Amino acid sequence: MSLVVTTVSGGLDSVTLAHSLAADGAALVALSFDYGQRHAKELELAARCADRLGAEHHVVDLRSVGALLTGSALTDRNVDVPEGHYTDASMASTVVANRNAIMLSVAIGVAVARGADAVATAVHAGDHTVYPDCRPEFIAAIEHEALVANEGFIQDGFRVLAPFLLVSKAEIVRRGAALDVPFAETWSCYVGGATHCGRCGTCVERREAFELAGVSDPTAYAQVSA
Amino acid sequence: MSLVVTTVSGGLDSVTLAHSLAADGAALVALSFDYGQRHAKELELAARCADRLGAEHHVVDLRSVGALLTGSALTDRNVDVPEGHYTDASMASTVVANRNAIMLSVAIGVAVARGADAVATAVHAGDHTVYPDCRPEFIAAIEHEALVANEGFIQDGFRVLAPFLLVSKAEIVRRGAALDVPFAETWSCYVGGATHCGRCGTCVERREAFELAGVSDPTAYAQVSA
Repeated sequence: MSLVVTTVSGGLDSVTLAHSLAADGAALVALSFDYGQRHAKELELAARCADRLGAEHHVVDLRSVGALLTGSALTDRNVDVPEGHYTDASMASTVVANRNAIMLSVAIGVAVARGADAVATAVHAGDHTVYPDCRPEFIAAIEHEALVANEGFIQDGFRVLAPFLLVSKAEIVRRGAALDVPFAETWSCYVGGATHCGRCGTCVERREAFELAGVSDPTAYAQVSA
Repeated sequence: MSLVVTTVSGGLDSVTLAHSLAADGAALVALSFDYGQRHAKELELAARCADRLGAEHHVVDLRSVGALLTGSALTDRNVDVPEGHYTDASMASTVVANRNAIMLSVAIGVAVARGADAVATAVHAGDHTVYPDCRPEFIAAIEHEALVANEGFIQDGFRVLAPFLLVSKAEIVRRGAALDVPFAETWSCYVGGATHCGRCGTCVERREAFELAGVSDPTAYAQVSA
C-alpha cells in the first residue's frame, strides 16, 4: 500500500482528492496550513475529512510566513476580497506569493522524513489563468526540484501527484459525488463568515460547478448574487 | 540599488554573505528561521548582523514544520548530535528533510511580495557531499521552479544567488576577514550550549577553516578535541 502526504485545505477540491486517494487504497498523512487566511473555518473541515478517512492529520502553523506575504486579499486585511465572478484582475488580488511552492515544500519534507511515495495537491484547471503555481509546468518543476533536493533520501519513483491539474471544478464535483463526498463538509468562501457568503469569486465558482455537474448543492449561502 | 532577500542563520557563512551583499550595495531583507533547532543562539546573532548592516530582519517561525521533520539530530531530541570530524554517516544524521527548499521557498515568497531582485543563500562547497540540497543542481532547480511558480509576479531577471556554492569554508573565512566580519558574532555549534562545544562536526569544521585560512579564530571553545 502506498503512503501519500496530501494537502487538505478543507475546500471542495482537496477534500475530494483525499477521498479519491483513500478510495484508491493509499494510506494518507493529511496536512493543512494555517497561514492566517480569513477562511480559517476550512481547517476545521480538513480535520473532519482526515477523521472520516482514518488519516493522520497535522495543521502546520505558517502564520509567521503569511504575515510576510503582504498584498494578497487572503492574508492582508487591508486588501478587500473581490466580489462577483472572478476576472483575471480580481483573481490576481488573491495571489499569495509562492504559496503552493511553500506548502508543497513542507509536504515534500514530511514525505521524505516519513518515507512516503508521493505528495498530492488538488490544484485544478480553473486555477490556471491567474495562479502561475497551479500550472502543469509548476508541478513538473517542483517535482524535479524535490528529487534533486532530496537525492539519496527520497523514495524511488517519488511523485508530486496533481490529478485534477487538467480537470474542471464541475468534473471534480462529479467525481466527488461518485465517491459520496459529503460536500456540506467542505468550505470554499474566502470571506470567512459563519456560512458561505455566496458572492465572492470562490462562492460563485462553487455554485456554478454544482450546476454544471448536475449535482445537488448542499451549501447554505448567505446571499446569492445575480 | 538592488533589493535582496537573504537567509541569515547567524552562522559564519550566512553572516559573511550578508556582509558581502551589503558591501556590494544591496539593500537587504534578512530572514532567519526558527525550526526548533538546538542551536537557537544563532537567531540572536542573526538579529545582531541585520542590525549592524541596517537591514530589515524577520524571524520566521517554522517550529510547527520542524516538529514534523523527525529523524534529524538538529530537531529530534532522540537523535544524538555527532561528535568529531564529519563523516558521510554522521553528517547524514544532521539532514533536515527538504530544509533548504522550505526556507528558500519562503524567502522567494517574501521576495515576490516585496518586488526583490533576488534571494541569496550561503550554501557552500563543503556541504555538498551529504546534503543534496546544497548542490548547484538544486540551486538551478529551485531557481527554475521559482520563475515558473511566480511568472507575471516576479521581477524580470530574478535570481537565486548562492555565491559560495563552489567556495570552501576556509575561503569564506578569508573573504569575511577582508570585509571585517566580526566572527565572534557568528555561531556554528550544533549542540546549543552557552559557548561553542569545540567537538561537534561544525565546531571541528569551523576551527579547521580558520586554520586553513590563516585567520585568527576569535571563538571561545568549551573543549578542543584531539
